[in-house]
Amino acid sequence: MEAKKAAAELAIMDVHDGMIVGLGTGSTAYWAIQGLGLRVQNGLNIQAVATSVASENLAKELGIPLIPFADITEIDITIDGADEVDADWHLTKGGGGALLREKIVAFSSKKLIVVVDESKVVERLGTFPLPVEIVQFGYELTIRNLQALGCEPQVRMADNQPYVTDNGNYIIDCYFGSIPNPAELHQAMNSIPGVVENGLFVGMASQVIVGYRDGSVKRLVGE
Amino acid sequence: MEAKKAAAELAIMDVHDGMIVGLGTGSTAYWAIQGLGLRVQNGLNIQAVATSVASENLAKELGIPLIPFADITEIDITIDGADEVDADWHLTKGGGGALLREKIVAFSSKKLIVVVDESKVVERLGTFPLPVEIVQFGYELTIRNLQALGCEPQVRMADNQPYVTDNGNYIIDCYFGSIPNPAELHQAMNSIPGVVENGLFVGMASQVIVGYRDGSVKRLVGE
Repeated sequence: MEAKKAAAELAIMDVHDGMIVGLGTGSTAYWAIQGLGLRVQNGLNIQAVATSVASENLAKELGIPLIPFADITEIDITIDGADEVDADWHLTKGGGGALLREKIVAFSSKKLIVVVDESKVVERLGTFPLPVEIVQFGYELTIRNLQALGCEPQVRMADNQPYVTDNGNYIIDCYFGSIPNPAELHQAMNSIPGVVENGLFVGMASQVIVGYRDGSVKRLVGE
Repeated sequence: MEAKKAAAELAIMDVHDGMIVGLGTGSTAYWAIQGLGLRVQNGLNIQAVATSVASENLAKELGIPLIPFADITEIDITIDGADEVDADWHLTKGGGGALLREKIVAFSSKKLIVVVDESKVVERLGTFPLPVEIVQFGYELTIRNLQALGCEPQVRMADNQPYVTDNGNYIIDCYFGSIPNPAELHQAMNSIPGVVENGLFVGMASQVIVGYRDGSVKRLVGE
C-alpha cells in the first residue's frame, strides 16, 4: 500500500489551480483522489470527472468539485493505475472492469499520468489477462473471433453469471501469455464488431510513476 | 417496393439446404425473409439467426427455424439491405438503428449478399448520414472526437429524447457529405473509445443485387 500511496502523491504534484482532472479507478487511483482531496481542502481549485461510481463517491466525500462532461471540451490531466506497464509505456488495464470509462476519459485528456507499484512493471505485456468489453448480442461469435487472435478467452463471472459492466456489456479475459505487438492487437480487436473496447492503452500514457516497497518513487524512463 | 422485392427474390436463390442463414433488417430484408419463408414452407431445410427482434418475429411467423448463436461457429450466408452502396461494394448501413447486430452477423458470415433498390447505388458514400453507435457514458466527449474527423454529428432522437439502441447505446448521425476513404474512416472511428461500432461496411459484401423500378434486377459488377 505504501508503494502505491507514495507514487500517487508524486503524481498529484502535476495538478494545478484551474485544471480539469480525470479521476481513475482502483487501489492506486484511490490514493491519488485522497491526496487531491487534501489539497482541495487546503485551497487547490480544480474540477474533476470520474471514471467510476466509486471514484465519484470518494471525490464527493472529500469535497472535490465534479463537473459534467457536457461542460468540458478536454481534460487537462488524468491520473490512473494500470495492471501492466511495459518499457514503451503501453498499458493493460481493466482488471477492475472500468476499462471503457477509463479509456474514454484518458483519450480526451491532454496528459495521462499512470501510477503503479513495482509489481506492474513488465518487459512485455500479456501475462495479465487482457480484458475486452463486448456487447451481449451474439457474444458467442465475438468470443470465437477473439480466440482467432491467439488467446484463451474466458467470460468474466460474478455469482455464477456473466459479469455485466456499468455499460451493460460482458468482459472477456483474454489469456495471451505474451503480447509482442500491442498496437496491432489493439487495432485487430477493435475491428471485430461486438468488441466495444479492449484493455490495451497504446501510446496514451504521458508519464509513468512507479512506487517501490521501500517507499521510494521513480518516474519510469520511456524507451 | 417492386424493385426491392425483385432484388430480394434473386438473392434468396443463393440459399440452399443445410445452410445457416443470417436474416437482415429493414424493408428489403423483409422481402428476403418473406421469400425464404415461402421456400421453407415448400421444403427448404435451413436454420436462421436474426439481426433484430422484428426480423426474428417475422421468421417465427413464417416458420423459419431459428438457432441460438451458442450453437453455431459460422453463418453460411447473410442477406441484408444497405443505405448506400458504392462501386467497390462498400456500404453504409444503420439508418434503421440495427447496425451493430447486422455487423456482428455479417462479420461471421462466409457470404454477405446485399440487396438494394437503385436509389441506394452511389458513386461515393457519405450523402446519407453515417450512423455511429456510442456508449452513453461521456457521450459529449465522444461526439467531439467524431466531429474532429470532419463531420457534423447529430444525436438521433426519439420522442424528444436520445434514441437508445437494443444494446443500450446512443446513435450519432454523422453528416460527412462525402467519404473519400471509407476504410480509413472506419478505422479512425473504431479507434475512438466510446464508439461501439459505425455504419461503414468496408470490404464485407460478397455480392450486391440491385432492383430497378421497372422490376428488373442486376448483380452489381465490382470495380
